[in-house]
Amino acid sequence: MKINHNYLNLKESYLFSLIAKKVNEYRQQNPDKDIIRLGIGDVTLPLVPAVVEAMHKAVSEMGNADTFKGYGEEQGYGFLRQAVCNYYARKGVLLDISEVFISDGAKSDIGNILDIFGTDNAVIIPDPVYPVYVDTNIMAGRKITFINGNEENNFLPLPDENTEGDIVYICSPNNPTGAVYTVEQLKVWVDWALERDAVILFDSAYEAYIQDSGLPTSIFQIPGAKKCSIEFCSLSKTAGFTGTRCGYTVIPHDLVRDKVSLNRLWLRRQTTKFNGVPYIVQRGAEAVFSEAGLKQIGEQISYYLDNARIIADTLAGLGIWFTGGKNSPYIWLKCPNNMSSWEFFDYLLNNFGIAGTPGAGFGENGEGFFRLTAFGDKEDVRKAMERIGKIVV
Amino acid sequence: MKINHNYLNLKESYLFSLIAKKVNEYRQQNPDKDIIRLGIGDVTLPLVPAVVEAMHKAVSEMGNADTFKGYGEEQGYGFLRQAVCNYYARKGVLLDISEVFISDGAKSDIGNILDIFGTDNAVIIPDPVYPVYVDTNIMAGRKITFINGNEENNFLPLPDENTEGDIVYICSPNNPTGAVYTVEQLKVWVDWALERDAVILFDSAYEAYIQDSGLPTSIFQIPGAKKCSIEFCSLSKTAGFTGTRCGYTVIPHDLVRDKVSLNRLWLRRQTTKFNGVPYIVQRGAEAVFSEAGLKQIGEQISYYLDNARIIADTLAGLGIWFTGGKNSPYIWLKCPNNMSSWEFFDYLLNNFGIAGTPGAGFGENGEGFFRLTAFGDKEDVRKAMERIGKIVV
Repeated sequence: MKINHNYLNLKESYLFSLIAKKVNEYRQQNPDKDIIRLGIGDVTLPLVPAVVEAMHKAVSEMGNADTFKGYGEEQGYGFLRQAVCNYYARKGVLLDISEVFISDGAKSDIGNILDIFGTDNAVIIPDPVYPVYVDTNIMAGRKITFINGNEENNFLPLPDENTEGDIVYICSPNNPTGAVYTVEQLKVWVDWALERDAVILFDSAYEAYIQDSGLPTSIFQIPGAKKCSIEFCSLSKTAGFTGTRCGYTVIPHDLVRDKVSLNRLWLRRQTTKFNGVPYIVQRGAEAVFSEAGLKQIGEQISYYLDNARIIADTLAGLGIWFTGGKNSPYIWLKCPNNMSSWEFFDYLLNNFGIAGTPGAGFGENGEGFFRLTAFGDKEDVRKAMERIGKIVV
Repeated sequence: MKINHNYLNLKESYLFSLIAKKVNEYRQQNPDKDIIRLGIGDVTLPLVPAVVEAMHKAVSEMGNADTFKGYGEEQGYGFLRQAVCNYYARKGVLLDISEVFISDGAKSDIGNILDIFGTDNAVIIPDPVYPVYVDTNIMAGRKITFINGNEENNFLPLPDENTEGDIVYICSPNNPTGAVYTVEQLKVWVDWALERDAVILFDSAYEAYIQDSGLPTSIFQIPGAKKCSIEFCSLSKTAGFTGTRCGYTVIPHDLVRDKVSLNRLWLRRQTTKFNGVPYIVQRGAEAVFSEAGLKQIGEQISYYLDNARIIADTLAGLGIWFTGGKNSPYIWLKCPNNMSSWEFFDYLLNNFGIAGTPGAGFGENGEGFFRLTAFGDKEDVRKAMERIGKIVV
């Protein structure tokens, strides 16, 4: 038996283990000092009452012979797919429920979608980036070209006359940079894809954080996108579902390559290799999209966005360059005084007891940058910013 | 963008849609007659009280800031992996918790595991068989050789001097035949795999139905199996989790190919393309393995096994050849009077109002055979068997 040798080309990431090691060392050397973690990529607020109530009801249904649910459709219950369609209708995007696939999270679908694409496609991935895009393509042995995000393009790279590829990943609002593409910028990507029959894999996991009404929250708000895009979204950061696991993937029927509907291919993949999301979780997800649910998650998102604003205001006051901080839970800053990502990590930890995430962990172009997140406790964020306010830039 | 052209080699299955069509036609032509469905592959009894209670508790935890859970480890919480290890210890199989991976069901893992194997491996699949084994390998373009299950070997095929391959699927108790390999028979497969560095993918989704203490409920009860086997199991049929979604996959550290640990490869796959099972579901699954949970699911399994026995006794009385009917929820019978699978389907439906599953839907060797399942209501099963008792063989 031969293993998939592509796996041997994967790089081990020591980013989070090295952070943990350094934080532990600091804690041992400074037992009296508190550490504020501003590197957390996970939500901290609990599930909202509408979701909790819906899931209690669903658990009870599962314990009763008359209301018990066995296998559901692999692509999700109609009630939830309809709720997702209604959510998109508010954005001006009209979908049929057969274009919506319920999943256990965007990470799974972003990885698994590659199953329906030939391994000979050339892939374009922005740098810096969420590492899953890179690793899943290395596993399949695909050729990857990086496109540069940097200070000049505000970490929102666009194609130029030399940009060629079959599949491109776009994440907006971006992880790790918090940067958000405008309608005009996304249109450049859509036109680029349409011209060469490429496919855009659009990761909109942070769309619920967009507050500026002029910014696109779905690639399908861009004319022509239904002919060239797949959109992945998740309730993880929208509604605190990181430990509850539910997302959705939209594949329009207009998206056809090699004369084959990608929607049909994905349906075949999912019915063969997936058995759907727990009924209980789907009922919880449905409640997210109810009137009460949307109001309650809106308050949580405002809480996190307040944290982001507090961080952004502090950095702006110090004259530190950054992206994100609004319309996103992430703040991506240029390390002051030409420090490298890890130098700034050590500086923040050792001088102020603050732990963040070195940008170098997200790709070569992340060197010299640093990610802070807004998912922490507000008082901790305030305390951290009082400390950071003393940075001499 | 090029699609994965292997998908074009998949055959459409019309098995269940054709059954539904025929049942609907019968219903329209015979509006006064009731139809008893003995083809159901899904459980019908609700979740047991221990599981319902644990999930209510977990839902409440998720709604409270102090007990909320965000991302868990992709491979599952320690409490559940430990519960699985304890369950295996009762079988005499000692595992480390790092050898257990919690999943959203055996179907997902049986499909996704292929990610870590080279596409140039030759695959051996028994016929008849659960169609997922075949389709997932066609999707990856692997060469498949079928090995014959038939009346002569009681649908428990074994390798002979000509059997060569890198990966072999074994499902015991089998879907669709209900046949169970003995320790001696599984040892033949383990020795075969060890001799040629092949890997056995062992599907034990129905192990909880085994009542004869001499029959193996895990491949790891066979000496040497840890060096050549991966085991997939599920709570779907064990504890009515078909709509709740939880399973587990065991990859021993002793399983090494190309000098690489398959456990490490799978961990890398799962941490990259999966984000774990919902906390709420993992707490429910933990409760399955509690003392109260095991007692309660034991009663449900007895209920289904009683149904199987009622069916088996009727067939034996008629002198109809079959496998399964004990240690399994499935009964696989030879169609009487040399009828084909679909002829017998029509005969049962039109004369007795009973709907089963034609064996031809599970592979070429299924022609002339027929599957009945024990997941229905006991009174329905009794009524159906009274009707079937009138078959003239």
